[in-house]
Amino acid sequence: MTTARFEAFTDAVIAIIITIMVLEFKAPHEATWRALCEQYPHFLCYLLSFVFLGIYWNNHHHMMHSVKHVGGGVLWANLALLFWLSLVPFTTIWMAETHFAQVPVISYGLVLLGSAVCYFILTLQLVKVNGKDSEVARLLGRDFKGKVSVVIYLVGILGGFIHPLIAGISYVTVAAIWLVPDRRFEHRHN
Amino acid sequence: MTTARFEAFTDAVIAIIITIMVLEFKAPHEATWRALCEQYPHFLCYLLSFVFLGIYWNNHHHMMHSVKHVGGGVLWANLALLFWLSLVPFTTIWMAETHFAQVPVISYGLVLLGSAVCYFILTLQLVKVNGKDSEVARLLGRDFKGKVSVVIYLVGILGGFIHPLIAGISYVTVAAIWLVPDRRFEHRHN
Amino acid sequence: MTTARFEAFTDAVIAIIITIMVLEFKAPHEATWRALCEQYPHFLCYLLSFVFLGIYWNNHHHMMHSVKHVGGGVLWANLALLFWLSLVPFTTIWMAETHFAQVPVISYGLVLLGSAVCYFILTLQLVKVNGKDSEVARLLGRDFKGKVSVVIYLVGILGGFIHPLIAGISYVTVAAIWLVPDRRFEHRHN
Amino acid sequence: MTTARFEAFTDAVIAIIITIMVLEFKAPHEATWRALCEQYPHFLCYLLSFVFLGIYWNNHHHMMHSVKHVGGGVLWANLALLFWLSLVPFTTIWMAETHFAQVPVISYGLVLLGSAVCYFILTLQLVKVNGKDSEVARLLGRDFKGKVSVVIYLVGILGGFIHPLIAGISYVTVAAIWLVPDRRFEHRHN
Repeated sequence: MTTARFEAFTDAVIAIIITIMVLEFKAPHEATWRALCEQYPHFLCYLLSFVFLGIYWNNHHHMMHSVKHVGGGVLWANLALLFWLSLVPFTTIWMAETHFAQVPVISYGLVLLGSAVCYFILTLQLVKVNGKDSEVARLLGRDFKGKVSVVIYLVGILGGFIHPLIAGISYVTVAAIWLVPDRRFEHRHN
Repeated sequence: MTTARFEAFTDAVIAIIITIMVLEFKAPHEATWRALCEQYPHFLCYLLSFVFLGIYWNNHHHMMHSVKHVGGGVLWANLALLFWLSLVPFTTIWMAETHFAQVPVISYGLVLLGSAVCYFILTLQLVKVNGKDSEVARLLGRDFKGKVSVVIYLVGILGGFIHPLIAGISYVTVAAIWLVPDRRFEHRHN
Repeated sequence: MTTARFEAFTDAVIAIIITIMVLEFKAPHEATWRALCEQYPHFLCYLLSFVFLGIYWNNHHHMMHSVKHVGGGVLWANLALLFWLSLVPFTTIWMAETHFAQVPVISYGLVLLGSAVCYFILTLQLVKVNGKDSEVARLLGRDFKGKVSVVIYLVGILGGFIHPLIAGISYVTVAAIWLVPDRRFEHRHN
Repeated sequence: MTTARFEAFTDAVIAIIITIMVLEFKAPHEATWRALCEQYPHFLCYLLSFVFLGIYWNNHHHMMHSVKHVGGGVLWANLALLFWLSLVPFTTIWMAETHFAQVPVISYGLVLLGSAVCYFILTLQLVKVNGKDSEVARLLGRDFKGKVSVVIYLVGILGGFIHPLIAGISYVTVAAIWLVPDRRFEHRHN
């Protein structure tokens, strides 16, 4: 029952973050295919951010299935995660409007990095509250993906100072790693 | 319990998509009936999109009643559906602002087509996870409406290159087909 | 279980409608009390619309408690109600920006009237699905308030053609009638 | 079951209030770190409001756990709380855009004060409905934090007329008091 409201709130915030990004897709002034195509950076950035938020929702959803107890530490770790995720629309639009300029692309990565770190803290809090022998602790294991993501983000962000493309490739790489279904939790749903 | 959160997230996203379209209804600068009437394309387009999103919510709601299991494939098929539906406000406003010009009207249809295809994939995933003998598989049957909709959209979109009105008629036709209550699932609620 | 998702979707839409109105409260350009006070029409209109939406949510919430069955007719009557309610932000802002000019004030009433009529249809549908001997039918009774509201709106809207103040008084009157707790359902919660 | 829908609606509104603030974070026109840093007042104000809304959600969540009955008085006290909270984005943005000018900073405090008073009324209503011997009454106790917050807000708002910094410090102080986990309810979750 505790986790129900906790999950519902998280879902609502992620749902809103995903959806309000569309508000920044401004309808082109001309009714031509060319005008539509000129919006391709907005489309690409929106798709990337949609996938990232979808991954977070998906993993959050899977992880919470194994969770029995939620305490104050978990609630605040989760709010910190939502805070960072809520900055995604800002960096998404900045990146799109500047056609993938260096500083916005790096900023986009910093927000993703902040989210990943908060998600990691959330997993630590969940293990702390539920115990090292709990189902969630066993299923999270060493959380290889979570740690690798942080490393790739760091490398990508540093690489972004050389060329934004390096950063961009690192973000897509992390998304690809997570799109592969997470076997740790997956089997519980089938 | 799995489907509960899955449905809640879907509802939240659809609710937000429906509602944020209203944000683009800008209050006329003059306080006259004439100024209000000049907004008729926005009103018409909003009504059409509201009906489409209402149909999707309604059918999603009915279908999920017969569903017991949700897996990773279903979650991602659903997210893909939500992605396409989230583009509806963009094409709705573009169509309204250009007073039903050809390219925006065709784009509107492409987004509807993308949504219909994703919904179809979602039904396939649900049948795959729940089995061919499951209640959802039996109730979906051959999914006549779903397939017909895709064909009408395709014809309408092609016809739109001749005249936008042809496309518009095809969209209204699909909406009308779906507004007729879906007997396959309906009886379960009475 | 059916009503759970039905209610959740309704809540989400009403929650969003209430909240997005705030987006139109633009921060004054000057940091003075005078600049803040000049926004009084926005504040008044927002408060009125917030109260109306609060009443609808409250009554919807109370009524659905007595409801066991929801069918296709109920779902669509509810969607029609949400459609009309979703137009409230538009007329609210128009009324505020034009400082209570005649046409926007009448339009505001037309949207309230449309919502009231849809709510009435929703109650009819609920009685139809649940039967004349059902708890919801007995509790709704003759639905005196619902019918009186429609009459007051009609009188107010017609009066608005003489002076917007007449319309305004009628809206506040309806809100006051409903703010008095609805004894028909209320006792079920204590 | 009553409290479930009540909580879900509250969560949705708070989730939306938190998230729409991000919409006012406009992407800088230049793609430079300097342009990003110039947005620091928006970032600071957003963070502060996020924390305040997080605290309200957190406390609401904890408090409702001990609640069995919800009546009309509770519903309206809660709606009044949501009304005040919904004004937070407005004052947040005004404060940020004017770089912490005196009048917006005081207005920000008045909205926080209004919210705190409504939350206090909500606790009184909950005790009234559930009885003085109820779990929620016992757990709320004398509600020391709630009363101290109101006093600090009042002092801060008055101090704001001397210098906005005094008001600002009072707001951060209240946030800090509440960030310390509320031991009254906390233990119920572990």
